[in-house]
Amino acid sequence: MSKVLMGPSTLIYPMPVLLVGAKVNDKPNFMTVAWSGIAGGNPPMISVAIRNQRYTLRGIRQTMTFSVNVPSADLVKEADYCGIVSGSKVNKVDVCEFKVFYGKLGNAPLIEQCPVNLECKVAHILNLGSYSLIVGGIKETHVSEGCLTDGKPDFNKIKPLTWITDPASQYCVFGDVIAKAFSIGKELKARQ
Amino acid sequence: MSKVLMGPSTLIYPMPVLLVGAKVNDKPNFMTVAWSGIAGGNPPMISVAIRNQRYTLRGIRQTMTFSVNVPSADLVKEADYCGIVSGSKVNKVDVCEFKVFYGKLGNAPLIEQCPVNLECKVAHILNLGSYSLIVGGIKETHVSEGCLTDGKPDFNKIKPLTWITDPASQYCVFGDVIAKAFSIGKELKARQ
Repeated sequence: MSKVLMGPSTLIYPMPVLLVGAKVNDKPNFMTVAWSGIAGGNPPMISVAIRNQRYTLRGIRQTMTFSVNVPSADLVKEADYCGIVSGSKVNKVDVCEFKVFYGKLGNAPLIEQCPVNLECKVAHILNLGSYSLIVGGIKETHVSEGCLTDGKPDFNKIKPLTWITDPASQYCVFGDVIAKAFSIGKELKARQ
Repeated sequence: MSKVLMGPSTLIYPMPVLLVGAKVNDKPNFMTVAWSGIAGGNPPMISVAIRNQRYTLRGIRQTMTFSVNVPSADLVKEADYCGIVSGSKVNKVDVCEFKVFYGKLGNAPLIEQCPVNLECKVAHILNLGSYSLIVGGIKETHVSEGCLTDGKPDFNKIKPLTWITDPASQYCVFGDVIAKAFSIGKELKARQ
């Protein structure tokens, strides 16, 4: 199949839809982030890319802590809203009617309505041009009780979103499970 | 809704399924990675977390270049396989029948069958315990011609995968679009 060159671009699939929280000037604020990924396993780490001028980044630098909250599809309106307005102008917690709580770190604001919440402590900040890459240690994980099955997080109940940029900028839910991981690939071992 | 504490864990949704490539001792090799995210926009950057003892990491350090390939659902078997065997023991390119090509960087191996391929140059390597976080500049993007609509990458044709860890380790495709991004959130502006 022939290939078309697109130039340097941020094109991976899927990208998550996450609400990153921090206290800015002592008040909780949240922004929507799609540019994030797990960064390590032992200890558990996460990376979040944030444009340098963003208000939430100021709070992350002030407190050196932040949260990552996974909104369910039911919160798509709130998740979108937190990406289009700035906390420097509006109290997003009030507008979105987020119930904010705090955990182990004490100052990483967490959203009760989001089924999964991570409390993170900044380990590194890389200056990558127009963005800063925040690399944080994940210090605690909170999961809504109603989103567990046999004590484990259940993605069917969590109902996470993905953000698609092309052919249009949209939010999408998950579809069918098509294969077991660490399993279906074994069929190819016969070819070794 | 009450919350259950899970301890520090790598729990975000969705996680991608990506094939990261590098030449190791001058031969192309690929490994499956779920711990990756976009790390910056201007210039375009990506992060990939790789366990220190992985064979592919050796090649990334040797050449300081790597590729990120997005497999479609049709390649789920190959994507799983590349995560369960090591290139130190098996020639994964042969087993998976990958057609390898090279682009602008010359030594970042790309998989023709994958609809999206990024060529990357290492900018930073962070030592994060058992994992290294490779932060790379995205230098070129290749998209299969058949996966474009009106010249833009089309998610419905690319058919990316997500990896779910709980309640079981599985691969899942994407379902319905539920909202327009940078749009549905505007409804909440009335509450400001």
